[in-house]
Amino acid sequence: MKYIDLRSDTVTMPTDKMRAEMFKAVVGDDVYGDDPTVLELEEYAAKLVGKEAALFVPSGTFGNQLALLTHCKRGDEVILGDDCHIVAHEVGAASVIAGVQLRTLQSDRGILNPEEIQSKIREEDLHYPETGLICVENAHSNGRVIPLENMRAIYKIGQQNKIPVHLDGARVFNAATYLNVDVKEVTENCDSVMFCLSKGLCAPVGSILAGTKQFIDKARKGRKLMGGGLRQAGILGAAGLVALKEMTQRLDKDHKNAILLGEKLSTIPGIEVNFEDIHINMVYFNIRVPHKNVENLEEILYSKGIKINPPENGLLRFVTHYWITEEDISYIVDTLKEVLSN
Amino acid sequence: MKYIDLRSDTVTMPTDKMRAEMFKAVVGDDVYGDDPTVLELEEYAAKLVGKEAALFVPSGTFGNQLALLTHCKRGDEVILGDDCHIVAHEVGAASVIAGVQLRTLQSDRGILNPEEIQSKIREEDLHYPETGLICVENAHSNGRVIPLENMRAIYKIGQQNKIPVHLDGARVFNAATYLNVDVKEVTENCDSVMFCLSKGLCAPVGSILAGTKQFIDKARKGRKLMGGGLRQAGILGAAGLVALKEMTQRLDKDHKNAILLGEKLSTIPGIEVNFEDIHINMVYFNIRVPHKNVENLEEILYSKGIKINPPENGLLRFVTHYWITEEDISYIVDTLKEVLSN
Amino acid sequence: MKYIDLRSDTVTMPTDKMRAEMFKAVVGDDVYGDDPTVLELEEYAAKLVGKEAALFVPSGTFGNQLALLTHCKRGDEVILGDDCHIVAHEVGAASVIAGVQLRTLQSDRGILNPEEIQSKIREEDLHYPETGLICVENAHSNGRVIPLENMRAIYKIGQQNKIPVHLDGARVFNAATYLNVDVKEVTENCDSVMFCLSKGLCAPVGSILAGTKQFIDKARKGRKLMGGGLRQAGILGAAGLVALKEMTQRLDKDHKNAILLGEKLSTIPGIEVNFEDIHINMVYFNIRVPHKNVENLEEILYSKGIKINPPENGLLRFVTHYWITEEDISYIVDTLKEVLSN
Amino acid sequence: MKYIDLRSDTVTMPTDKMRAEMFKAVVGDDVYGDDPTVLELEEYAAKLVGKEAALFVPSGTFGNQLALLTHCKRGDEVILGDDCHIVAHEVGAASVIAGVQLRTLQSDRGILNPEEIQSKIREEDLHYPETGLICVENAHSNGRVIPLENMRAIYKIGQQNKIPVHLDGARVFNAATYLNVDVKEVTENCDSVMFCLSKGLCAPVGSILAGTKQFIDKARKGRKLMGGGLRQAGILGAAGLVALKEMTQRLDKDHKNAILLGEKLSTIPGIEVNFEDIHINMVYFNIRVPHKNVENLEEILYSKGIKINPPENGLLRFVTHYWITEEDISYIVDTLKEVLSN
Repeated sequence: MKYIDLRSDTVTMPTDKMRAEMFKAVVGDDVYGDDPTVLELEEYAAKLVGKEAALFVPSGTFGNQLALLTHCKRGDEVILGDDCHIVAHEVGAASVIAGVQLRTLQSDRGILNPEEIQSKIREEDLHYPETGLICVENAHSNGRVIPLENMRAIYKIGQQNKIPVHLDGARVFNAATYLNVDVKEVTENCDSVMFCLSKGLCAPVGSILAGTKQFIDKARKGRKLMGGGLRQAGILGAAGLVALKEMTQRLDKDHKNAILLGEKLSTIPGIEVNFEDIHINMVYFNIRVPHKNVENLEEILYSKGIKINPPENGLLRFVTHYWITEEDISYIVDTLKEVLSN
Repeated sequence: MKYIDLRSDTVTMPTDKMRAEMFKAVVGDDVYGDDPTVLELEEYAAKLVGKEAALFVPSGTFGNQLALLTHCKRGDEVILGDDCHIVAHEVGAASVIAGVQLRTLQSDRGILNPEEIQSKIREEDLHYPETGLICVENAHSNGRVIPLENMRAIYKIGQQNKIPVHLDGARVFNAATYLNVDVKEVTENCDSVMFCLSKGLCAPVGSILAGTKQFIDKARKGRKLMGGGLRQAGILGAAGLVALKEMTQRLDKDHKNAILLGEKLSTIPGIEVNFEDIHINMVYFNIRVPHKNVENLEEILYSKGIKINPPENGLLRFVTHYWITEEDISYIVDTLKEVLSN
Repeated sequence: MKYIDLRSDTVTMPTDKMRAEMFKAVVGDDVYGDDPTVLELEEYAAKLVGKEAALFVPSGTFGNQLALLTHCKRGDEVILGDDCHIVAHEVGAASVIAGVQLRTLQSDRGILNPEEIQSKIREEDLHYPETGLICVENAHSNGRVIPLENMRAIYKIGQQNKIPVHLDGARVFNAATYLNVDVKEVTENCDSVMFCLSKGLCAPVGSILAGTKQFIDKARKGRKLMGGGLRQAGILGAAGLVALKEMTQRLDKDHKNAILLGEKLSTIPGIEVNFEDIHINMVYFNIRVPHKNVENLEEILYSKGIKINPPENGLLRFVTHYWITEEDISYIVDTLKEVLSN
Repeated sequence: MKYIDLRSDTVTMPTDKMRAEMFKAVVGDDVYGDDPTVLELEEYAAKLVGKEAALFVPSGTFGNQLALLTHCKRGDEVILGDDCHIVAHEVGAASVIAGVQLRTLQSDRGILNPEEIQSKIREEDLHYPETGLICVENAHSNGRVIPLENMRAIYKIGQQNKIPVHLDGARVFNAATYLNVDVKEVTENCDSVMFCLSKGLCAPVGSILAGTKQFIDKARKGRKLMGGGLRQAGILGAAGLVALKEMTQRLDKDHKNAILLGEKLSTIPGIEVNFEDIHINMVYFNIRVPHKNVENLEEILYSKGIKINPPENGLLRFVTHYWITEEDISYIVDTLKEVLSN
């Protein structure tokens, strides 16, 4: 059975083009620096986000944690939002691998207050750790895009205090698409950026960490330490090149489909869609009407060929992506309407 | 020159009684468990705060960090206030020694919202660290005492979720004095407590970590690991016994002196005292009047025999303690009045 | 130009069969446990080495470090050979990620003395860390195979002392091939084993960590923490299945070629081959004759289509693998003879 | 009952002079740098061992671990003897606090082979951690003194490779006494040294870490992080000054008593004393004669006023110190003779 998978854009399969490119990829031992496809990907990726150098890493979590390890000394303090991916969804890795202290700020739906960041930066004192890094996330994993002015203000604070800024840009191309700017206008507001080739870009495996040449040289050794030195990684790199060259161009389609899905869902009685939160490819909504099927919605939809995640705090999230068509959207909404009506 | 030292209660010298007791202390090698004075202190301390066992440690920071190390596995998450001592003044040690991830909440002048704590406790999920500990601080290092109801609510959450609660009670006897309760009514709301023998209690060196016997047995090994296994520590233990037996009884005097100092300071034109923050022995105030001497106040007062810390965010803090008499208070206020008037 | 690459078996390209299987692999989001190819690989791999469960990881270093993280608490001591891969070639990761103390023993060309291991196991004492793990490596990265009796003796010590034994089996199929036993006869002497799908088995990326179900369940979360939770990893898994099903059967060819290469090399005047060290696919030899080309051998051979690593302590290592044919061996030896003769 | 305590020199009580000096010590808050006695001690100690600066720390383990933390980055490798105190008796702290990788060498009864050290120093390579420190121990905790030529050879290797050398000199004054040289001739062969004020020098608590001013400035912050920032530490500092000024002068007496004790013990039938190991104040011996009392020797001697440790690997250790007189030695030997004879 073919499923419509709304759980996340992490579920995206590689495209036919990716499979074809992977099939014929010229590869080598990347630990020796011998994989031409990985080298091409890293060069292309660096250029794309306006950084000196880039490094292929196995996952977004890997890239973020490697950034912490590379920017910070043991015991440095990192300022970041309490709801960001590094804090919320990376298993506490920051305390295990980089050994840094997180200083978590409340965000306004992903937006950090630059003045609050400034107030948390440490002076020199016998009692204080050094502030080693500021992290921002855009698009945020809550589905919202952070305004460029906010990123600029935070980066300015970083520069004024000589503290690097890392961007968790797992979905940075979604952010650029929403903002309708070249991705470089987003990534120019940070010293390092991690972005994923998987998720909305459909590559099967892999992310990129980009920054100065010096930073990436150091990160390369950290990647080996963390077990991310891969051999013939060009197989994955070939898909990554398709992701960056082609798939970044079509994310507006997913965003439009998200709005379409939201609009259609909102026609179902009892469903309230958070339209103001549809920045990229995520639709958040409540089902306000009491119905016996709400509790078992996950199982019921699964039986009808639709995969969803259970609600968090009563909120459902449907994610659009390359493998969700307009037809799928009609089927999803019709099916949900039926499930909630009888 | 004899100085009046208002910088902190950490500056307190040992009393004559303490010196006498230290002089004649019966001691032994405490790593072998052979120091009768330390054993007496630990037993007395445990009883005093209603815990099964206690351990002498070199400092408050040591005791707090040992609590993190003992309660938590590598990578566990600890929920605590952004402004508490463990976060703000312990050099990032939590990420270096225990290797735990701090989840820092905004506090209402030291008071944590129990519901917010509950919302941060992690469920079982592949992406989540385990919540290993909740920390509270009473009296808070901002000088305020946390209400018992708040501590009870937090401890209840801890128990419901099977997450231990550690109390940073560096000044827990000040808290009990302010609340006018036996200290056990404070410490019954936590699984482990650290409190200092120095600070307002005047012992030269040392703090106590108390908890269940099992917890303290484990902490004893962690203490050795952290380099806190001392030899003839009974010298310090003798002063600690005086601190616990006698000095805990007289803290109301320091608190009254703080109010007295606040009242007298408020008579100086331009000085605004935060009376509602005088819970224990700390007086916070602003100097609103512009005066050439305000900027160099630290040096000017030093030249007149008074030691103060520079203001933080415009706020000055004067701390009363055993070695600050009512006469000293008159001298302080008269001197400050003079310095700000000509 | 097509190069004959003797530097390592890590340079092996995926086979045509692997590329075909990767092309058509059925994949899913492996973080959700949805990738059928990865699931098939893990099940096949576990069975192959006689363990309850297995986990796909990005690299051998990743698998070894994940084993340390999963077996050990922070601060545990690990007993292992000073010359093993974990000590020598994993960038000090054991102290960064797992936070364990290495107790490094001198090995007899890879063989650890069981009695010495026994003597290093810690009793319960206030001054001692706990011994958390014993590690062995077979085949050793020095190219030699450890006798089964030695592995049995070490495993027995582990079991008697209730200390788990981890096998770094990056090339465990080479070991089994040399010993002419089913690989299970090797892996039955450990609680967990890591082995590589790349290296002699030619898969482009990936390794397996296998052990009890409980161990692998815990390791799965550690893998996420270390950034090794991949998405459509079945692309790599498809190659891994070919590696395990087919490539494990042909390693004797590489071993025979190594002996052949050794024999032919030894006919060159001045070359001394360590025949007793040719257990698997690695040929170690010295060039005793002084010749102007010895110093620049790496560059000279490169210009003739042969890649080698520089000598370590005067010793050269040539590694045979799937992509080195008997014809290549003749070409290598003829070329080297010529380079050293004129 | 007054016991003769032969278990270790860690059991030494403070002398009457120490108690008198502690009683009248002028103290201050050492975290503020205000304790004149600690400042005097640190200055005196630095001068005594020929280093720029020194820092008072709570224990020898604390000082050693602080040295690791200060010299090394997270993940650096430390070369040291498998039997040294840092490896054997500090609870695995090096992996928990400093987060460094230990590379443990077999020693020849405490003496490390300089060539072996050289061979373990890491070159720059993607696979290698950096060698961050070499540690030596003199006098060794096995009771033997390392020859100065060996220390010089190791220090030279450190300097040639720009790797600092730390000396665990817990009993460095015993070493200097045995070698009959000024202690500076020992400590000039290292970049940092830790030595204890307790043990043979009889101070109740405390050790010194000494090195360059820059090193000590950095260590001061690390001491705070590790919870070793003490307040009125001058109480302990006063005893430390007596230890350094007076007690260092009399260690030859303990050494002579150790030889005397050894000689007398060797007159008891069945006792074999390792005379060649009596360098300082430790006497190692076997009891070869089978006697019913040998198994319960600890309890039997305790009942007669003598405290000893149980044998390790059949070897008994008696330690002489300030509180063991020649009369005590006679009593010990007479008692033991009696216990083993009837």
